[in-house]
Amino acid sequence: MKSIVTSLLLLTTLSVFGDDRTVGTSPWGPDDEIGRLNLMTNKSRTEILSRIVDGTTYDLSVEYFIGMPSWQAAGDPHYRIWMTHTPHGTVVDDPLNLGKPMNEHVSYTGAAVSMYTHMGTHIDALNHFGLDGKIWNGFSAEDYAGDRGWQKAGAENIPPIIARGILIDVAAGKSLEMLPDGYRITREDLKKTLRKQRTKLLEGDVVLIRTGRMQSYEDAAAYMADSPGLGLDAARFLVEDGGAMIVGADNLSLEAFPSELETDYVPVHTYLLAQQGTPILELVNLEELSRDQVYEFAFIGGSLKFRGADAAPIRPIAIPVR
Amino acid sequence: MKSIVTSLLLLTTLSVFGDDRTVGTSPWGPDDEIGRLNLMTNKSRTEILSRIVDGTTYDLSVEYFIGMPSWQAAGDPHYRIWMTHTPHGTVVDDPLNLGKPMNEHVSYTGAAVSMYTHMGTHIDALNHFGLDGKIWNGFSAEDYAGDRGWQKAGAENIPPIIARGILIDVAAGKSLEMLPDGYRITREDLKKTLRKQRTKLLEGDVVLIRTGRMQSYEDAAAYMADSPGLGLDAARFLVEDGGAMIVGADNLSLEAFPSELETDYVPVHTYLLAQQGTPILELVNLEELSRDQVYEFAFIGGSLKFRGADAAPIRPIAIPVR
Amino acid sequence: MKSIVTSLLLLTTLSVFGDDRTVGTSPWGPDDEIGRLNLMTNKSRTEILSRIVDGTTYDLSVEYFIGMPSWQAAGDPHYRIWMTHTPHGTVVDDPLNLGKPMNEHVSYTGAAVSMYTHMGTHIDALNHFGLDGKIWNGFSAEDYAGDRGWQKAGAENIPPIIARGILIDVAAGKSLEMLPDGYRITREDLKKTLRKQRTKLLEGDVVLIRTGRMQSYEDAAAYMADSPGLGLDAARFLVEDGGAMIVGADNLSLEAFPSELETDYVPVHTYLLAQQGTPILELVNLEELSRDQVYEFAFIGGSLKFRGADAAPIRPIAIPVR
Amino acid sequence: MKSIVTSLLLLTTLSVFGDDRTVGTSPWGPDDEIGRLNLMTNKSRTEILSRIVDGTTYDLSVEYFIGMPSWQAAGDPHYRIWMTHTPHGTVVDDPLNLGKPMNEHVSYTGAAVSMYTHMGTHIDALNHFGLDGKIWNGFSAEDYAGDRGWQKAGAENIPPIIARGILIDVAAGKSLEMLPDGYRITREDLKKTLRKQRTKLLEGDVVLIRTGRMQSYEDAAAYMADSPGLGLDAARFLVEDGGAMIVGADNLSLEAFPSELETDYVPVHTYLLAQQGTPILELVNLEELSRDQVYEFAFIGGSLKFRGADAAPIRPIAIPVR
Repeated sequence: MKSIVTSLLLLTTLSVFGDDRTVGTSPWGPDDEIGRLNLMTNKSRTEILSRIVDGTTYDLSVEYFIGMPSWQAAGDPHYRIWMTHTPHGTVVDDPLNLGKPMNEHVSYTGAAVSMYTHMGTHIDALNHFGLDGKIWNGFSAEDYAGDRGWQKAGAENIPPIIARGILIDVAAGKSLEMLPDGYRITREDLKKTLRKQRTKLLEGDVVLIRTGRMQSYEDAAAYMADSPGLGLDAARFLVEDGGAMIVGADNLSLEAFPSELETDYVPVHTYLLAQQGTPILELVNLEELSRDQVYEFAFIGGSLKFRGADAAPIRPIAIPVR
Repeated sequence: MKSIVTSLLLLTTLSVFGDDRTVGTSPWGPDDEIGRLNLMTNKSRTEILSRIVDGTTYDLSVEYFIGMPSWQAAGDPHYRIWMTHTPHGTVVDDPLNLGKPMNEHVSYTGAAVSMYTHMGTHIDALNHFGLDGKIWNGFSAEDYAGDRGWQKAGAENIPPIIARGILIDVAAGKSLEMLPDGYRITREDLKKTLRKQRTKLLEGDVVLIRTGRMQSYEDAAAYMADSPGLGLDAARFLVEDGGAMIVGADNLSLEAFPSELETDYVPVHTYLLAQQGTPILELVNLEELSRDQVYEFAFIGGSLKFRGADAAPIRPIAIPVR
Repeated sequence: MKSIVTSLLLLTTLSVFGDDRTVGTSPWGPDDEIGRLNLMTNKSRTEILSRIVDGTTYDLSVEYFIGMPSWQAAGDPHYRIWMTHTPHGTVVDDPLNLGKPMNEHVSYTGAAVSMYTHMGTHIDALNHFGLDGKIWNGFSAEDYAGDRGWQKAGAENIPPIIARGILIDVAAGKSLEMLPDGYRITREDLKKTLRKQRTKLLEGDVVLIRTGRMQSYEDAAAYMADSPGLGLDAARFLVEDGGAMIVGADNLSLEAFPSELETDYVPVHTYLLAQQGTPILELVNLEELSRDQVYEFAFIGGSLKFRGADAAPIRPIAIPVR
Repeated sequence: MKSIVTSLLLLTTLSVFGDDRTVGTSPWGPDDEIGRLNLMTNKSRTEILSRIVDGTTYDLSVEYFIGMPSWQAAGDPHYRIWMTHTPHGTVVDDPLNLGKPMNEHVSYTGAAVSMYTHMGTHIDALNHFGLDGKIWNGFSAEDYAGDRGWQKAGAENIPPIIARGILIDVAAGKSLEMLPDGYRITREDLKKTLRKQRTKLLEGDVVLIRTGRMQSYEDAAAYMADSPGLGLDAARFLVEDGGAMIVGADNLSLEAFPSELETDYVPVHTYLLAQQGTPILELVNLEELSRDQVYEFAFIGGSLKFRGADAAPIRPIAIPVR
């Protein structure tokens, strides 16, 4: 446990945000629960969809399996799947009182799953991290956090996402297969890669950062250990300069650890979610986009509507645009 | 339990399929695990995507919450969500050894879920029901069904779906709000509704049948009780005459009960999945499409890639086409 | 849902306890977390053990199975068991990379379970119900209730129980097979039955009340519906007059519903747990003791030490004494 | 994974049992599902109970908590506990529609747990390991193993256990705090320790072997890594020479790894369970018995009656006898 804790500890302190950091107030009004997802409009969707010329699709999601990568430092459940009905078991159990001949003829298979909501390709809702007991737009845990999730900003509020997607292939930008362990992506890394790719960010984009870490996905220990990730200033660049609606990456926790702030062990999460109302995508598979050098695309995906939840799985696709 | 069992029992016998029913052999070769999803091609995707002119989207999925509808006759897990981390609990537990001030400042929320794979809007994989120990394309439980699912035809094989979608609003076709309890939809119902809607089925369609039952979704008992559903001959019409790639509906179990066959308690499932290689969509929310009389659309959705599973949640969208 | 809620609503109001009810302060000091279990001493154990003359034992626990009775009004998980390893599944999956011949020779079976802690024969810890945010002895949820249970009064603190056990067979006392639905046991019922049985209560007893409801255990719906149970004044008699260390019964929720108090929907629970520091046993199988008219016995049982939990399963036994 | 697998591989081959090993046939008849537990009789219970002179009890069980030791090589669920109701969450959620004042007054706490059945102090049922598709007494997986466990030899059949208990403190016998990593206990170790302790085994005993490993229980990684354990010949001595009814130990998997047999990766388990009908106790806390040099005692404990399960938790106690 010691080693895990140490890895979360703070090395340096940025003056960017002082101890007076507080959650953001939504420009979309006191009832707003989705933050920058408000940037998505019929017009913005029409615009990106009208640029599709071909049915080539890129599947941006990963598989769920026993042994898959997951964050275990805080004791959350692993992904598990188990069989509630099998062709043979049904013959023995006869759970529906149908008799042996029926169960032998009709071969029934059923399964159940359990998981932490932050497993596989998923989106963080704005209630995942807050500051001082409040989340984005000032909703308080005192008033809204119950035993079944939050009554505000839960995953069920996230609309289906159709937006311009941008891959920033930082690994390729540095001519690397994968960023080094623990590497913290800077504002300059992003700007340089965008220039190299000849890509420009626009307000409302889904911006996906590639570290290359996804190549280790099938080896959970390797995938999890000391991942490269986003720095706080780089995150600020994406939202404040680039206008990103969603920020995502191919690693598990988006940001690099240890934290840059003494008073916040996940400053990129609290900055994006609680201060800027910007949902986060994690574990996005960007390998094929990288291989084909597809940097701009229609991003289309719908996350599961888990009522009250702080995150939900999503299987998004990318369709290149002209 | 008796009453549930009785409701699954067979009242009449159709001569459509005798006792010699066996699983289908794939025309796409001995390795095929996705059946009619092979009908989806770059060309078919391009065709439907190129007909989109507007960013209006319809969310076809339902919410997950404690108390939501689910099939309980065979003892499967209900949907459950629980909090593994709350802003207050983290202060008490300090699971990451960060100390009280840090936990009071950074407000962490995490949740976990468990569910049967056939809950909420979902797609049935081809291994969900088989005949005589085999599933679509002859894969046997003996060889391929383990304790973590099937090594063949699992949900991870289902590609992202982009296809022409067709709503057959049978309830509206009969000028009803909702089909009566237990109503079994016939081939004639489908043909009549298609005529009334001026819609034609094409090979490769995602065909979605509306019974109106979704209006009761928030009242699980009402939603589940004696649902209207598809009859076997109607299912044959959709695949054999209409060329459907996927068949779905707004109820939980697609087909009407009790079964029409003495020897098969889920003949529509075994026909579609095991004999025709046709995945099934259930619990699809078709209310808004019905309200706006949108009968033809681009259907876009990606189901979760649960390795080996017999079904997976999906949050598809519909985008009207010209 | 309506009907369930109504059944919890309060019909009449007793003046027994007003709105000024507060949690009890332990006579065993400010650190006490087990309340009246402090009555158990080496001397008390020696006393009852020395009266055993014969090895006849009564198993007081029920079985756990899918479909077993459980309280479902508040959305808690049912009991579920599933196979993580089966002889056949292991051959297909080879989860330990041992190869097919090994898996065919060594036939491995493993299972997992999940459950609400209040299922099957179990004991309620003192943190299960409190008043105004505090539990027995003044420990507050604010200070001690985290995401993994309470840091005070959790089930891990409950010692193995060896004590004089007393059956009060109220059903038999009234010459009934089973008390009527919803029957609320009174102080007079208990006194009369004790007289009839020629049994006297002593300080430190485990007192078990028989309603006869256990006869319906295999039929969960019948077992759960409108159970007879203990009234508040009867509970006061057991503790204040009788000196009971633990109070238990053969039904699921010990007390009768609807509540006798307008301001408390579970007044017997809050009285016993929060005010008197008296753990509660539920779902105790008393049928064989009743059949053999065994009213006094050595009660021996150890509940599982779930750290922080508000209850834990127990499989106690009764051994008649001379 | 590799390393785990290697640790299960076989180094040497004993000639003790050849490849012709088969499951045992019960001397208690073709219906027997509990094997050597048949040795327990009213007489045997009376005998040991009558030797109790004092109420001193030893709690032989461990606590369940998130992070506790568990065998993870085959992907089984860890122990998890989560709150389904908290005093604060209930105020926010109002799951019973009781209103805020009621929920603020009555402070409700409820929790749920999930676990592999082989966690914490537990007993293995005879269906846990078999040979060639059969378990003790010839019951086959083909006929009796369903999706909810076995219809034969499940944990619900295990009676409450009251028997003579014997501690064989092998660590102390060798004047060690703890046996060395990976140490395989021999027949000679057991005989020598029994002589040193001046203890004799009798038919029907619960024999508990102390390796000292329990001292690392709170540090799961240390507890699990390369544990000392029982050798096959030592197990044979306990049953065939000593007459043991149950064999247990303070480590997780009883036996030492890697296996002594090329064809069986858990030969002590299959010998005891499948061939000799001898249940196994694991994770038994023997530290206090060792400290007080209590080698003979009344062993009293009841395992949970999980229907069909291959193991169940138990919280046994030891009471010294004269």
